[in-house]
Amino acid sequence: MSKMERPFDEELKSLKEKLLEMASRAEEQIGLAVRGLKDRKEEMACEVLEKEEAINRLDIEIDDMAMRLLALRQPLATDLRFITSAMKIGSDLERIGDLAVNIAQRTIDLLKQPQLKPLIDIPRMAALAQGMVRDALNAFVNGDADLAKNVCRRDDQVDELNNQIFRELLTYMTADPTTVPRAVDLILVGRHLERIADHATNIGEDVIYMVQGKTIKHHVEEGRFTGLQGCPAPDQKK
Amino acid sequence: MSKMERPFDEELKSLKEKLLEMASRAEEQIGLAVRGLKDRKEEMACEVLEKEEAINRLDIEIDDMAMRLLALRQPLATDLRFITSAMKIGSDLERIGDLAVNIAQRTIDLLKQPQLKPLIDIPRMAALAQGMVRDALNAFVNGDADLAKNVCRRDDQVDELNNQIFRELLTYMTADPTTVPRAVDLILVGRHLERIADHATNIGEDVIYMVQGKTIKHHVEEGRFTGLQGCPAPDQKK
Repeated sequence: MSKMERPFDEELKSLKEKLLEMASRAEEQIGLAVRGLKDRKEEMACEVLEKEEAINRLDIEIDDMAMRLLALRQPLATDLRFITSAMKIGSDLERIGDLAVNIAQRTIDLLKQPQLKPLIDIPRMAALAQGMVRDALNAFVNGDADLAKNVCRRDDQVDELNNQIFRELLTYMTADPTTVPRAVDLILVGRHLERIADHATNIGEDVIYMVQGKTIKHHVEEGRFTGLQGCPAPDQKK
Repeated sequence: MSKMERPFDEELKSLKEKLLEMASRAEEQIGLAVRGLKDRKEEMACEVLEKEEAINRLDIEIDDMAMRLLALRQPLATDLRFITSAMKIGSDLERIGDLAVNIAQRTIDLLKQPQLKPLIDIPRMAALAQGMVRDALNAFVNGDADLAKNVCRRDDQVDELNNQIFRELLTYMTADPTTVPRAVDLILVGRHLERIADHATNIGEDVIYMVQGKTIKHHVEEGRFTGLQGCPAPDQKK
């Protein structure tokens, strides 16, 4: 669908570019944090901590740009949805950056102790989460609702992997209590990665909302939790 | 500071009321989830799961109202900041609701096993987090930056308590491996409460931004992490 080029489009494009830059930095932080953990390189974890500020600055810049666009351009319909989505996506990316920092902090802690086990599943989880962040942003810039839905669906794989890691580490701790502090640190790393995937899913949901003009977010979540609760379903109760 | 009443003010007021309702529900969910855990009442945990939908619905309503106001009223300056803050606060409250659900899920799991220990610190943490959510919203509706700053400062107490709980539970697990699954569940409850306090802090930061028109959020966070990293500070390196 071709439409006339307006000066406003330039500003939207530059907002888009800032978000892409922020996403690629966030993705890099996840990779760096987990590689530092896997290869036992403290300097990589420290690099994550140093690079956090740049991501935070981008979040502020995106917020400022979006506010300026809302105030000066008073956009409607599609553009309005685009700008408010950009603000939300900025927040999600900022939290992804925070979570990468949390992983780096666990890494620094873990590297003071001998290695518990070679890590296989955590790097796999990280790769999945990175792919979700990347595709969620691609879906955003291309307005691709199908890709966004695909991102949301992949969240289950990450959850599954996290549960598997969790159960394995419980076994370690029960068998040998000296492993407890290290296993707990690894459980937390798994949790952080799971939350990164949740934020990528949020972004996917925002994209679907932006493209289709309706919100699906809580429906996705409800579907995800069905049958996991351990409580009687509403229709099983009198 | 009295100013002329405009029809727009009515709509802003109703947005404010929706946020207050959402916050009071979120606060109630935290209380219910932790009381269910402390008093070992599964029906309370199940109530949390049932009540989640109402909070999610409010988040969607707030988003819709804010979008409508942005589109139809094209607000400037203070009103614009108020509306975009409302959208962000809605997201934070929605995640607080999610975290209360996560606590309820841990509770359901924990109630299948004998009690590890009477809970003292977790309910204290919950009370602190609830107070932060309440005051953050009061700061928002009254535009009270001092109260908002006070909320942000209280986050340290919650973190401190969480670290204490964490260390105590590590001791349990190391001393007796049969406690591992329960202790890990309780560690996760502590984490969830810590994150609830983080979201309340985010709200406080948004309020300060809204009132003062400048963002403090990443400065607060930087201050909070200083010296915790285990990495050489930038000025200690060559």
